[in-house]
Amino acid sequence: MNSAAVLDLANSPHAVVRPVPPGRVGVAEGFWADRMRTMRSHGLDRQFEQCEVTGRLRNFERAAGRLAGEFEGRYYNDSDVYKWLEAASYGLARTPSTALRARVDGVIEAIAAAQRPDGYINSYFSGPRTSWRYRNLTDEHELYCMGHLIQAGVAHRRSTGSDRLFDIVVRAADHICATFGPEGRQEPDGHPGIELALVELGRETGNPAYLRRAVFFLDQRGADPPNLSGLHYHQDHAPVREQRAADGHSVRLTYLAAAMADAAMDTGEAELLEASIRLWESAYERRAYVTGGLGSRYQGEAFGADYELPNDRAYAETCAAVGGIFWNARLLAATGDARYADWLEAALYNGALVGVSPDGAAYFYANPLAADSQPTPDDQGGVHSSGAQQTGGGHRRQPWYDTACCPPNIARLLLSLPGYAYGVSPGALWVHQYLPGHVQALLPDGKSMTPRIATRYPWDGDVDLVVDDAPDEPVELRLRIPGWAEGASLEVQGAREAVEPGSYASIRRVWSAGTTLRLRLPMDVRLVASHPRVQANTGRVAIARGPVIYCIEAADHPESNVDALVLGPDSNLRAHDEPDLLGGLTTIRGLAGVAVQNQSDELYGRFGGAKPELTGTTSLTAIPYYAWANRTPGAMRVWIPYVDH
Amino acid sequence: MNSAAVLDLANSPHAVVRPVPPGRVGVAEGFWADRMRTMRSHGLDRQFEQCEVTGRLRNFERAAGRLAGEFEGRYYNDSDVYKWLEAASYGLARTPSTALRARVDGVIEAIAAAQRPDGYINSYFSGPRTSWRYRNLTDEHELYCMGHLIQAGVAHRRSTGSDRLFDIVVRAADHICATFGPEGRQEPDGHPGIELALVELGRETGNPAYLRRAVFFLDQRGADPPNLSGLHYHQDHAPVREQRAADGHSVRLTYLAAAMADAAMDTGEAELLEASIRLWESAYERRAYVTGGLGSRYQGEAFGADYELPNDRAYAETCAAVGGIFWNARLLAATGDARYADWLEAALYNGALVGVSPDGAAYFYANPLAADSQPTPDDQGGVHSSGAQQTGGGHRRQPWYDTACCPPNIARLLLSLPGYAYGVSPGALWVHQYLPGHVQALLPDGKSMTPRIATRYPWDGDVDLVVDDAPDEPVELRLRIPGWAEGASLEVQGAREAVEPGSYASIRRVWSAGTTLRLRLPMDVRLVASHPRVQANTGRVAIARGPVIYCIEAADHPESNVDALVLGPDSNLRAHDEPDLLGGLTTIRGLAGVAVQNQSDELYGRFGGAKPELTGTTSLTAIPYYAWANRTPGAMRVWIPYVDH
Repeated sequence: MNSAAVLDLANSPHAVVRPVPPGRVGVAEGFWADRMRTMRSHGLDRQFEQCEVTGRLRNFERAAGRLAGEFEGRYYNDSDVYKWLEAASYGLARTPSTALRARVDGVIEAIAAAQRPDGYINSYFSGPRTSWRYRNLTDEHELYCMGHLIQAGVAHRRSTGSDRLFDIVVRAADHICATFGPEGRQEPDGHPGIELALVELGRETGNPAYLRRAVFFLDQRGADPPNLSGLHYHQDHAPVREQRAADGHSVRLTYLAAAMADAAMDTGEAELLEASIRLWESAYERRAYVTGGLGSRYQGEAFGADYELPNDRAYAETCAAVGGIFWNARLLAATGDARYADWLEAALYNGALVGVSPDGAAYFYANPLAADSQPTPDDQGGVHSSGAQQTGGGHRRQPWYDTACCPPNIARLLLSLPGYAYGVSPGALWVHQYLPGHVQALLPDGKSMTPRIATRYPWDGDVDLVVDDAPDEPVELRLRIPGWAEGASLEVQGAREAVEPGSYASIRRVWSAGTTLRLRLPMDVRLVASHPRVQANTGRVAIARGPVIYCIEAADHPESNVDALVLGPDSNLRAHDEPDLLGGLTTIRGLAGVAVQNQSDELYGRFGGAKPELTGTTSLTAIPYYAWANRTPGAMRVWIPYVDH
Repeated sequence: MNSAAVLDLANSPHAVVRPVPPGRVGVAEGFWADRMRTMRSHGLDRQFEQCEVTGRLRNFERAAGRLAGEFEGRYYNDSDVYKWLEAASYGLARTPSTALRARVDGVIEAIAAAQRPDGYINSYFSGPRTSWRYRNLTDEHELYCMGHLIQAGVAHRRSTGSDRLFDIVVRAADHICATFGPEGRQEPDGHPGIELALVELGRETGNPAYLRRAVFFLDQRGADPPNLSGLHYHQDHAPVREQRAADGHSVRLTYLAAAMADAAMDTGEAELLEASIRLWESAYERRAYVTGGLGSRYQGEAFGADYELPNDRAYAETCAAVGGIFWNARLLAATGDARYADWLEAALYNGALVGVSPDGAAYFYANPLAADSQPTPDDQGGVHSSGAQQTGGGHRRQPWYDTACCPPNIARLLLSLPGYAYGVSPGALWVHQYLPGHVQALLPDGKSMTPRIATRYPWDGDVDLVVDDAPDEPVELRLRIPGWAEGASLEVQGAREAVEPGSYASIRRVWSAGTTLRLRLPMDVRLVASHPRVQANTGRVAIARGPVIYCIEAADHPESNVDALVLGPDSNLRAHDEPDLLGGLTTIRGLAGVAVQNQSDELYGRFGGAKPELTGTTSLTAIPYYAWANRTPGAMRVWIPYVDH
């Protein structure tokens, strides 16, 4: 089943660009292949072990009545096992493994044993707590958990051809549809997730009831009086079709708004799609970090106001970057608009990737864009969902969390990543992301188009696309020109022309085998500025190159506090390939001014002029943001002061 | 009993400067007299009505068994009534009132009826919940509430001479001392407060047991294993004597650290005083807002890391500014160091005063230093203690809160304010704060010194002090020269000399009646800069004049977004007296550049240079920060970009 889709829009009438299934995308080498291999060969196993030692797997055995003892952990912990199953299924599809398959089968067997005869399943609401079922949809995540089960079941079937998990999933979904609906309980879950799951299950089964229930759940939010809390936190403050601002819990919003776009591709409801786009504009045009991170507030793990984007206290949960990728992928499929592919790429190379260590086995929950050298405890108010965290220089990736949503979320993203690279529409093949390797795309008319890409992207902007095989009729190739790629050009058979950043360059012709397209994306070092209303970034710039956002970290600046470094017109920033640093990456080096800085200075004093006093200059090395916190702990900055010397 | 002390250090052997009781300080006119009068004549009554309508008073009737029905509100609501009683007692001391006294007596009668025979009192842990007493000291605030009761009882006795409330208080304190201690339960309360109360009760009664218990409670924190949660939030992460950083819940810390300094003045334990000073240095040298506000995080209502001082999301709870005043007053008394008087003044004129409306009847809970024009909901994670708040331009003072700690806290501060103005030490009278009016100070040897001050402070820096009466032996006058007052001078009998900002200017002589000291504090408009590590203020300055921090508000700038205003070398800022604006104040006017700002602009783009493009200039009007949010709702900024044009 190598052609397993992550998002199967083959029969979605209102989709514009249908993703090419990841099984048709070969990613043999390069940036993402390395990371997928590490997650597949190491990260997945470590996550499984965490599920074992933390009792997440034992909970199913107990719910099945095969093991004594009390439920361990938090009531939503089943969802981590389901997300691991989804990730493992994608892993099996790419690289068969007897050991991994045995683990997957063992988990499925335990889930099967724990499922109630009516299809309900939740290992917490079992045994003595059976009667608590659905007592508190606002907080207790039962439909959220079953949503992840459904996503896992769909992925497992598509990846392995087995119905073993899928049958469980259909029973669970049928139970949900029988319990909730116009004739049943009319309430949503406090944490979205079931909606995305039911839309995709509808596609997999062809049963329109699942899509209808997905839309039903979408429309249970924001009722008057409220079905849940009425709070933004639960996305319950307004009907989803009327929501205008990305408020409340950021992960919840990304899952919800992704489902709105997703359902619209099947139902054709413009209202749902438009509302999702409105929320996207709020989120990504006024409330997103330059890294693609979402969520400006620890409190409520929430979006902030427009332009409220603190760097040191960015929450930017890894799951929100991943959820944002799901959302952008669906809006891209629904519209073909390159802006969604741009933000998808930003989150991929920065806000999501930063969430995982180079060995694939340690994870960030929150992702600040600035850290001071002093570790700071963050138990200040009892973060309900991520446990005590260190901020500042003490902020390090952890092997697991009490609330472990992020680790398997990044795993399922990485192991399905090739599914985000290509799309098809009638007569056209779209290239959204540039991964070296080949694709065997089936166009909607069933004809095959098989180009191959050679590139060192993101370190190099040269992308060569060779058509290996193509139909003997005109096919449009649509190549994404990233929004940052000012000066990009495309050469086809000796003719080079400029292409427009932030769009898809289109070439339609009858392709002969061996034809090469040479895309040149300028990889100059860029200084990025924020909208002036972003108060946190007044007087500061970020360093970027291609899709990669950079940061400066204490480990590269033993002589100077990174706080004190100041960029200016003479900084002369240049890229340097560093094949031996942190698995191989490109650093940016140059000169920085060193501001006079003395920690014993007064907190407030008379203003002495706009330009900081400099003690001299020093060499500056910036590394990709995703790579920070892998060496000696210390301060980090994405946004760096800039002064005209 | 006009000589009632707020902080009675007459017999505290280790105090350096003993406050002159507020009853000996006449404040007949001017800035604070107006505000005290409004609070006394209007605010106190509105607060009483809120205590009535919200059931806070009925709760006592129910606990006494005289009224049916369920407890109303939150389990710590008794404390608001006690703080109101404390404020009303100070009010009665200044202005006798039959109506107010009747209300006070009625409340005391209800409290007396609700008190248990063993001295315990809490209207929530009564009736069906009697057996819950002390089941959860970490969260349930019982000792905190009784601490406020004790403070009210001491204030009531000192203000009125009556023992009616004081007898209740002594029974409650004796119950606490019998229940907790080396021979009893060895646990503190999750919210400090009982410690300050017991120290002062020890002074009022002369019974050393209360002071001992206060120190006992201080030392129950940070135990291993923890007595409470072990969290910074509850100030339970480390023994108080070993704490080095101002972490956790900001109000809790101010009450705790104030009690440490307070107890040390009676016990002489240098370790306690030094620990309090260390915490103060952390709080005020690295974690305080320029307004004297404390608490950088909504989450946990907590301090942030060093230099983490976001403006839009400043929590800066009014109670933390007030608690900071209590803390600074005690450290000032314990050391005589002018830096405490400086921060006390900063909080008084800015961070605390902003918490109350001009009519004394509406209150802020959180006090941001920047607000955008768009109101933003803040229900994002369910603020446990302040209820849903609007931030941004929708942030307005409220008549009351579900958790109503702030309104009576500002009331008790304002109505005891003259108690913070003067101090005495052997042979010396200290002037900490410049209030127009007279003082009849008793020096420690019993001799009387009665100067009178004439000033329009804070609008004018001319302070004339006339000695009306003095002993016929040398007395040292110590006049505080605020840290901001560069260029200050003092003239005595025709001889003028410069005095050192951030110190007490000392003149010791035999004073003849009618001698005048002319203190001249320069009231130039200052631009204030932050320590470079305060990321939120990079490239920004604050406008200040004297002790008053200014802000720009949308109401004064109908033509321009206050976000877009930029200060520069040509801003030519000047003070203007505005007797008719917001009760009379001094504005600062000048010219600002208007930065090009278009809300449809991209969130991130290529950096185009360090200097913002300006469309032109406009007139700028800054008002005192304390006065914002009293006109048309809209954006506000304390920290304003500054660019060398």
